[in-house]
Amino acid sequence: MSYLEMSKEELDVELKKMKEAYEQYKSMDLQLDMSRGKPGSAQLDLSEGLLTTVISNEDCRTLAGLDCRNYGSLEGIPEMRRIFARILGVDKNEVMVGGNSSLNMMFDTVSTMMTANVCGGTPWARLDKIKWLCPAPGYDRHFAITQYFGFEMITIPMKSDGPDMDMIEQLVSQDDTIKGIWCVPKYSNPQGITYSDEVVRRFARLKPLAKDFRIMWDNAYVIHDISENSDTLLNLMDECKKCGNEDLPIMFTSTSKITFPGAGVACMACSENNMNFFRKKYSVQTIGYDKINMLRHVKFFGSYEGLMEHMQKHRAVLEPRFNAVVNKLENELGSLGIAHWVKPNGGYFVSVDVLEGCAKRVVELCKNAGVVLTSAGATFPYGKDPKDSNIRLAPTLPPVEELEMAMNLFCVAVRLASLEKLTA
Amino acid sequence: MSYLEMSKEELDVELKKMKEAYEQYKSMDLQLDMSRGKPGSAQLDLSEGLLTTVISNEDCRTLAGLDCRNYGSLEGIPEMRRIFARILGVDKNEVMVGGNSSLNMMFDTVSTMMTANVCGGTPWARLDKIKWLCPAPGYDRHFAITQYFGFEMITIPMKSDGPDMDMIEQLVSQDDTIKGIWCVPKYSNPQGITYSDEVVRRFARLKPLAKDFRIMWDNAYVIHDISENSDTLLNLMDECKKCGNEDLPIMFTSTSKITFPGAGVACMACSENNMNFFRKKYSVQTIGYDKINMLRHVKFFGSYEGLMEHMQKHRAVLEPRFNAVVNKLENELGSLGIAHWVKPNGGYFVSVDVLEGCAKRVVELCKNAGVVLTSAGATFPYGKDPKDSNIRLAPTLPPVEELEMAMNLFCVAVRLASLEKLTA
Repeated sequence: MSYLEMSKEELDVELKKMKEAYEQYKSMDLQLDMSRGKPGSAQLDLSEGLLTTVISNEDCRTLAGLDCRNYGSLEGIPEMRRIFARILGVDKNEVMVGGNSSLNMMFDTVSTMMTANVCGGTPWARLDKIKWLCPAPGYDRHFAITQYFGFEMITIPMKSDGPDMDMIEQLVSQDDTIKGIWCVPKYSNPQGITYSDEVVRRFARLKPLAKDFRIMWDNAYVIHDISENSDTLLNLMDECKKCGNEDLPIMFTSTSKITFPGAGVACMACSENNMNFFRKKYSVQTIGYDKINMLRHVKFFGSYEGLMEHMQKHRAVLEPRFNAVVNKLENELGSLGIAHWVKPNGGYFVSVDVLEGCAKRVVELCKNAGVVLTSAGATFPYGKDPKDSNIRLAPTLPPVEELEMAMNLFCVAVRLASLEKLTA
Repeated sequence: MSYLEMSKEELDVELKKMKEAYEQYKSMDLQLDMSRGKPGSAQLDLSEGLLTTVISNEDCRTLAGLDCRNYGSLEGIPEMRRIFARILGVDKNEVMVGGNSSLNMMFDTVSTMMTANVCGGTPWARLDKIKWLCPAPGYDRHFAITQYFGFEMITIPMKSDGPDMDMIEQLVSQDDTIKGIWCVPKYSNPQGITYSDEVVRRFARLKPLAKDFRIMWDNAYVIHDISENSDTLLNLMDECKKCGNEDLPIMFTSTSKITFPGAGVACMACSENNMNFFRKKYSVQTIGYDKINMLRHVKFFGSYEGLMEHMQKHRAVLEPRFNAVVNKLENELGSLGIAHWVKPNGGYFVSVDVLEGCAKRVVELCKNAGVVLTSAGATFPYGKDPKDSNIRLAPTLPPVEELEMAMNLFCVAVRLASLEKLTA
């Protein structure tokens, strides 16, 4: 029976029950962490072959003969560019391979435009005001970049098929201080939403007043399916090219959640115009990124197809975890009318919306009983969820038995916080 | 006999002889490259153990238990910080380990100060004018960074024991638009000069008018001896601390020329104040650099002492090459009065000063006969050597026999260009 339909007396009985249940968990001295999208050991173990892939003095060259030990190759070795091009659905020449962090490449992209302008106009650091669109709930580290540079962040509500395009179209067509937008278009962080074809087409057709407006297309989970019902994302670059808008998107991805978060390979992809602009900067910034690590990845996977097979192994580890989380939510909270979530087909998170004003309290209750969740509000610009209702669950790191324990506590905490609100 | 003391007739005879010698080289279809400070294959081969150092799932943690495969550790793993701290003579906590490129960390350092100010003042990108001191001859990629950001570069002449400190002291004390200086304090690029104790002390005692003035101390060749007479560099950080000036220097080094240029580990080191400032930025820019590669380096070297032993192997490869270059210079040009050089005790280059107005011509003559040298002028800001006399020789990449061939041609080219000038 939904809590929202219960009488005061029924709620009081339930509240007493949940307080007792909560105290029981509290006495268990749990120490569990569901706060970050970190792969678990079982996933990291899948890539041991990368660690033991032997590169020798006789075998350290690209097909074209470049010695990966030495200087050179600003855009990365062709073999790695080709694999990323397949992953992102772009041309090899539209790909630049970087270091171990796509976040770093995103930061560098914004940073570059702070001091040089991609369209030859005023560098952003010399403008008094920059605004940036932030679909939310979203990724806290994206918001941290635009906050670091002092941009005013405008929250764009997420709908079930992507960000609110009406709002985006209206805003960018009228305000040339709006210079960009953060997007995680497939299995979005944290909701697991994949943008619909229509949303992608509307992004491709955007007509921003600011000529230096850019879509930061962080395709972090592009091949990260955790279900047989995988989502399909329309290719933004193809759609942009159809309407002469290919300078709009700058795409990113990495192997952080394919091989190792600490020692993977990242890339960016963009149009020739954009690449010429960024190459000019990168050619001053570095002589080239770690080619031995690129070569190791190429040898470990063998091919794009080999990499895709590898992703099936991740799915085998992750699917039971996500099922455990969603099953707990359904069994414990499904009929109570106090929480909403969508079962994702991929990505790294389950996003739960609790009753307005209850998210912080849920996270606090969990913390006091030894289970760390992502801070409430972290999924919104400035760390402030206007409704205080969104909670991000990261089911990948803890072992399944710990995960189930943590979810039991979480569901009790959601019920308790909701009852506190409803009986207040 | 010095060309400068020859009669017109003697010079004409010599010119004819050198023209013939040059034509002979030209007919040999050489294809040699002495342009960049790239380690040769024999040096890269020394670090094969780094490629084959086995890290396994069971053995991928730091001593403190951090899994190097996963996210985390913004400043780098403690074991690697400790080795770099020994190399630079600073405290472990003053070291941050980065990716594979110290150039990248230098670029990022300047870039950070473009958009945020280390002293809480105006970010440099919002100032109309920034000036930067550039001891020259110097490293072209340093100058490229300050040119990229639009700084006015002021050439500081190099003396035999470092940059002209009188000029530096005078300039920085009077002009608060001067925000920094590039230094390669040990075995400088290209001259191989090590700053004297007095020069280091004067750097430590600088009183710049700009509170956000920083010394970019690129200690790229800090342990790169190529002779039993190794130079000693006074510790700038220690000297700065003695006079409360520890926020002045930002130090850099890397293993690019210890292990692999393409896949080494770089670091920066600075005071607590500076580190707090840069950490704030790095914590937004990335979750952490490649810890597996750090761990691999730590395991390969075993210790700082192991790394120092490894440097002896580099010396064994490099010393004969530098001797070959300097011997050729002495034998072919020593008595002619048309070229000056100093035999370096370490580093990657030999710097030759030819008669004023002859450097471009020498490089052109070499190029037309198949030997690529660093462009004349590259060692000066904006690529313009006011005297057109400095040429950087990079003896590390070609095999010794090619090196000797290239040096034969180089000496002929210097003689020919000088004779062209003297007989004009």
